[in-house]
Amino acid sequence: MIRFNCDYGEGAHPRILARLQETNFVQTPGYGEDEYCREAAEMIRSLCESPEVDVHFLMGGTQANLTVLSAALRPWQGVVSADTGHIAVHETGSIEACGHKVLCIPHANGKLRAEDVEALCRAHYADASFEHMVMPGAVYISNPSELGTIYTLAELSALRKVCDEYHMLLFLDGARLGYGLASPENDLTLPFIAQTADVFYIGGTKQGALFGEAVVIRNAALKRDFRYQIKQRGGMLAKGRLLGIQFAELLRDGLYFDLSRHAVSLAMQIKAALQESGYEFLIDSPTNQQFPIFTDEQLSRLSESYAFSYQCRVDAKRSAVRICTSWATRAEDVERLISDIRRG
Amino acid sequence: MIRFNCDYGEGAHPRILARLQETNFVQTPGYGEDEYCREAAEMIRSLCESPEVDVHFLMGGTQANLTVLSAALRPWQGVVSADTGHIAVHETGSIEACGHKVLCIPHANGKLRAEDVEALCRAHYADASFEHMVMPGAVYISNPSELGTIYTLAELSALRKVCDEYHMLLFLDGARLGYGLASPENDLTLPFIAQTADVFYIGGTKQGALFGEAVVIRNAALKRDFRYQIKQRGGMLAKGRLLGIQFAELLRDGLYFDLSRHAVSLAMQIKAALQESGYEFLIDSPTNQQFPIFTDEQLSRLSESYAFSYQCRVDAKRSAVRICTSWATRAEDVERLISDIRRG
Amino acid sequence: MIRFNCDYGEGAHPRILARLQETNFVQTPGYGEDEYCREAAEMIRSLCESPEVDVHFLMGGTQANLTVLSAALRPWQGVVSADTGHIAVHETGSIEACGHKVLCIPHANGKLRAEDVEALCRAHYADASFEHMVMPGAVYISNPSELGTIYTLAELSALRKVCDEYHMLLFLDGARLGYGLASPENDLTLPFIAQTADVFYIGGTKQGALFGEAVVIRNAALKRDFRYQIKQRGGMLAKGRLLGIQFAELLRDGLYFDLSRHAVSLAMQIKAALQESGYEFLIDSPTNQQFPIFTDEQLSRLSESYAFSYQCRVDAKRSAVRICTSWATRAEDVERLISDIRRG
Amino acid sequence: MIRFNCDYGEGAHPRILARLQETNFVQTPGYGEDEYCREAAEMIRSLCESPEVDVHFLMGGTQANLTVLSAALRPWQGVVSADTGHIAVHETGSIEACGHKVLCIPHANGKLRAEDVEALCRAHYADASFEHMVMPGAVYISNPSELGTIYTLAELSALRKVCDEYHMLLFLDGARLGYGLASPENDLTLPFIAQTADVFYIGGTKQGALFGEAVVIRNAALKRDFRYQIKQRGGMLAKGRLLGIQFAELLRDGLYFDLSRHAVSLAMQIKAALQESGYEFLIDSPTNQQFPIFTDEQLSRLSESYAFSYQCRVDAKRSAVRICTSWATRAEDVERLISDIRRG
Repeated sequence: MIRFNCDYGEGAHPRILARLQETNFVQTPGYGEDEYCREAAEMIRSLCESPEVDVHFLMGGTQANLTVLSAALRPWQGVVSADTGHIAVHETGSIEACGHKVLCIPHANGKLRAEDVEALCRAHYADASFEHMVMPGAVYISNPSELGTIYTLAELSALRKVCDEYHMLLFLDGARLGYGLASPENDLTLPFIAQTADVFYIGGTKQGALFGEAVVIRNAALKRDFRYQIKQRGGMLAKGRLLGIQFAELLRDGLYFDLSRHAVSLAMQIKAALQESGYEFLIDSPTNQQFPIFTDEQLSRLSESYAFSYQCRVDAKRSAVRICTSWATRAEDVERLISDIRRG
Repeated sequence: MIRFNCDYGEGAHPRILARLQETNFVQTPGYGEDEYCREAAEMIRSLCESPEVDVHFLMGGTQANLTVLSAALRPWQGVVSADTGHIAVHETGSIEACGHKVLCIPHANGKLRAEDVEALCRAHYADASFEHMVMPGAVYISNPSELGTIYTLAELSALRKVCDEYHMLLFLDGARLGYGLASPENDLTLPFIAQTADVFYIGGTKQGALFGEAVVIRNAALKRDFRYQIKQRGGMLAKGRLLGIQFAELLRDGLYFDLSRHAVSLAMQIKAALQESGYEFLIDSPTNQQFPIFTDEQLSRLSESYAFSYQCRVDAKRSAVRICTSWATRAEDVERLISDIRRG
Repeated sequence: MIRFNCDYGEGAHPRILARLQETNFVQTPGYGEDEYCREAAEMIRSLCESPEVDVHFLMGGTQANLTVLSAALRPWQGVVSADTGHIAVHETGSIEACGHKVLCIPHANGKLRAEDVEALCRAHYADASFEHMVMPGAVYISNPSELGTIYTLAELSALRKVCDEYHMLLFLDGARLGYGLASPENDLTLPFIAQTADVFYIGGTKQGALFGEAVVIRNAALKRDFRYQIKQRGGMLAKGRLLGIQFAELLRDGLYFDLSRHAVSLAMQIKAALQESGYEFLIDSPTNQQFPIFTDEQLSRLSESYAFSYQCRVDAKRSAVRICTSWATRAEDVERLISDIRRG
Repeated sequence: MIRFNCDYGEGAHPRILARLQETNFVQTPGYGEDEYCREAAEMIRSLCESPEVDVHFLMGGTQANLTVLSAALRPWQGVVSADTGHIAVHETGSIEACGHKVLCIPHANGKLRAEDVEALCRAHYADASFEHMVMPGAVYISNPSELGTIYTLAELSALRKVCDEYHMLLFLDGARLGYGLASPENDLTLPFIAQTADVFYIGGTKQGALFGEAVVIRNAALKRDFRYQIKQRGGMLAKGRLLGIQFAELLRDGLYFDLSRHAVSLAMQIKAALQESGYEFLIDSPTNQQFPIFTDEQLSRLSESYAFSYQCRVDAKRSAVRICTSWATRAEDVERLISDIRRG
């Protein structure tokens, strides 16, 4: 059984394990106040060309999302999200558990359109009963989205403009950010994201680390007291060094970007093979997640050798699945999958 | 200016004010532990033919909704509601502020259909990632609905069945319950509701009281410690007697039902006049809220003499408004409105 | 049985009932956006000599406390309170239910001393693990305190200074504010309180209204969006007019202050009689709550005719009780109590 | 600089790193549903001689505490804790952020006494206003306590009895459980703890793992839906295998207990040296945390070579510090410290 069901099926890039071993008996202060975290934060500020941003290392995506949003929102504010957004669907109501409504907008190719966000905000403030409704206080997007699609520079700029107009924070969930930046269709850069979002994170868990997300904060109000919030929400790792060590190693010599390109390049091979074989897709994704549509027979046969993520039923005979490549995907496994796909 | 914009534009039925005056200097214990509350609770148990239910008096609808639901749900559970539900739209995220997601389903004539609730629950438990999603823990309906429509006995029974199947509580918001029971199309009774819902309330605020909702609990687990929750959420009125006095007076000699019939009967006159004059409606409502569609010109002219609630734009030239009658609506005001409607 | 157990045992001052009757059929907008609320707010701004403050009317003390504090605090902040504070003891954890710790300091005569608050704050920021502890974000006091004692102008100024130094809001719970201002030992004024506290309230429930507290906000950040928070926490009364009508009537012609003086004057008579008869007190209170110590026999005998609030056991043979007078206390009942006290 | 300031200053036991490397490219399902987690859970059930318990792996102590307690408590319930308890002091109000009050009792040698818990519960239910106060719903203890002391079998049994009497859950925080069990004064066993507490955890972070706590649940109601709560609170690690791998390795061949004995044995050597040299202690601790009292001069001199945790000032000239040994402490470092202590 070869697993293409997700991008967190293996451990970590060997360089990370080696570095953990190398530093294992160095004694450091706890809670992220060590040299490794400082080094990794400095590397991120440098890659973002943003010396003024704060960097905090958290353990996972749900934790990053709830910690950021509970710090960003006032009690009566909610966060605008695509109805497919991870916080809207797959985090067991973690944002609501912190007291905030997720204000859903139907997605457009997995993404949130600035014009739809603008319409929601306009309608809110135009309503005579606006105080009886949740105030939009932040906008949450993920890049790539849950459906693998990516925001263009123009789209991100348009969202920024709406956020400015309606005094909302812009938060970009970058659990798979590397895979987005490595897409052939990408026109974003880390410095642009760092200057456009109030807060975003660079994912580690799905990008070659054992675990970890690096939260980057530009917004001054959000920077203030953020470590209190990390601690309160259970996200302050005692051995915080583990996060600093991992991110420093991932970012050294561009490893993070190499691994991202590796995954996307393999995904593009699978996509091309599927297209050539005439398969349809649920959505046209330019990143490491592909959503082909198989007949029940095809799926049943492929499932003997491969694990995919079941996405949804498309019609009486066909379903969409998610095929994920990752930093760890082996070229020979992709080749085998491609040849099985071609075989029909 | 005659107000038809809501059913809480006046004070209270004169008998209530008289009774408040009469009892004003009687000394009682606080927090609802007085004779008046006991009397009113007994009257409600008797009307519901349910000697086993607990009755608590709260001050308003939002308060009742958030107090009941925060007591009813475990942290990871949400409440299923029509997307038009008051808790979903018009309570500034009060349920989320208590930590719970409102799981919205598109409404069917303002109502929640048992089959849609069933589909949501089935999908939840069928999903491999069900633990990553909010568990449906209760079903919230209001009768009449936000759009004035009412549940039939069959519909309520069907919802009960789904709730039983998926271990959910059924909660009926009865802020306008009297207006529902007084509808010519109604086939529900208080005893049936009391035996079918785990918890519901009999609205006072919109039905002739100064304020107040009588929460009726049948579910044993929910009964337990409920007064703690009332106190914690700010709903335990120091002079709780005010609620007991009002409900006892409202329910004495069937006043509550007389007032409800009065309002619905006037609403039916308005509806008939509108129909005769060829107006369309946003929805066909058999209760005290009517939702006719007016052209901009018609609305502008009527608005010189009458206050309505603006509902929504229907097309380039027309909007729907809400016309509300209430226990306090005067027949002569309705006659005047009808004649103005007929004049076009 | 004559009740001296609390100051909310009767209804409301007759002028309030009369005014409710008089205005009963006037139609108004809901949710506090009516003329009566505007009038009452204007009267309060005028009495406070503070045209810039915002005034909101809420239904009760717990509701006012939780609404104000949940709007005032960031998630990782707590509120400093005397360990006898109402929010610390008698609101079923309502502040914690909003996510915030109550940081308790042992009381000094029922009050919070500026030096103790300062010490707590200093210790917080001096601790190397400060981010692992709840940040003090506001100071809660009540005047009079739970034990009937009152703050002097100097004490309140000292608390203000500490709040400024440590960036905390100062919140004064004035559920019995009138009884404090009417004390022979009082040196505070409404204008001084309005200029010193970030937010406070003028109690109605215990001071002659059916219910209601008038929240006065000076702090600009707290003013912002406060009505959203009122709605979310269940405190936005549909017929908000009821609060405006009551406060306008209470404040007209100084009725509020007359009623307060009435209660305190009767309490002073009881206190004097107790002192003359040689009774000890749990605390020396200059307001409408008195805390004499009775032997079990005395208490048992008095309890045949009077209801007191049981406070605590003092020693093997004696207990302290609370005797409350109020706006509604009758002189003849006080005389009877005094003569029974003298009889021993 | 040699660090004795905490027991989480290094990485992990080499066997853990080796095992992570060995398993690195094995593909597994995510979220703790892998073979390694199953194996580790089975080992724990076996060590606890409790085949019926559920085992969940979380990332850290604060996360474990807030996840367990938010699942265990109803909204109006609080958790009883010693005033020195970690949840009461050092988790930035994480329990309050979940809506629950921590009901503090003054500690007795760092521990909670059954009689004090009983008194608190008795007083709660005896108070006429009990519904206005937070209901005690669970008891939180840690073993060893924050001050290094341990519960005896008799003490734990007594707490269990109080919990049964007042329908409270008993929760034991075992972040340093191994160090407690390895104490020369210990009379507890894992099976006894597993049968006595409703829920407890076996700490990994401070006991040789990179991170991780193994939560063991005996209480049937708490077992139900617990994974939803883990996910909601941000504690469901994508690569859950990392936790299973670590615990399986720690528990294999008794490594966990060997490491614990190593740390405690070194701590006892330091304790003996301090005692022989005439130093006083803040408390008499039989585990890996020692709290000697040094003069300012002594502390200043030792601090040139060693890092301790500053505990508190004892008098004008002396302070208490915490000296921690751990699984990673080197015998030669302890010898050096001892000789420096002896030198005065």
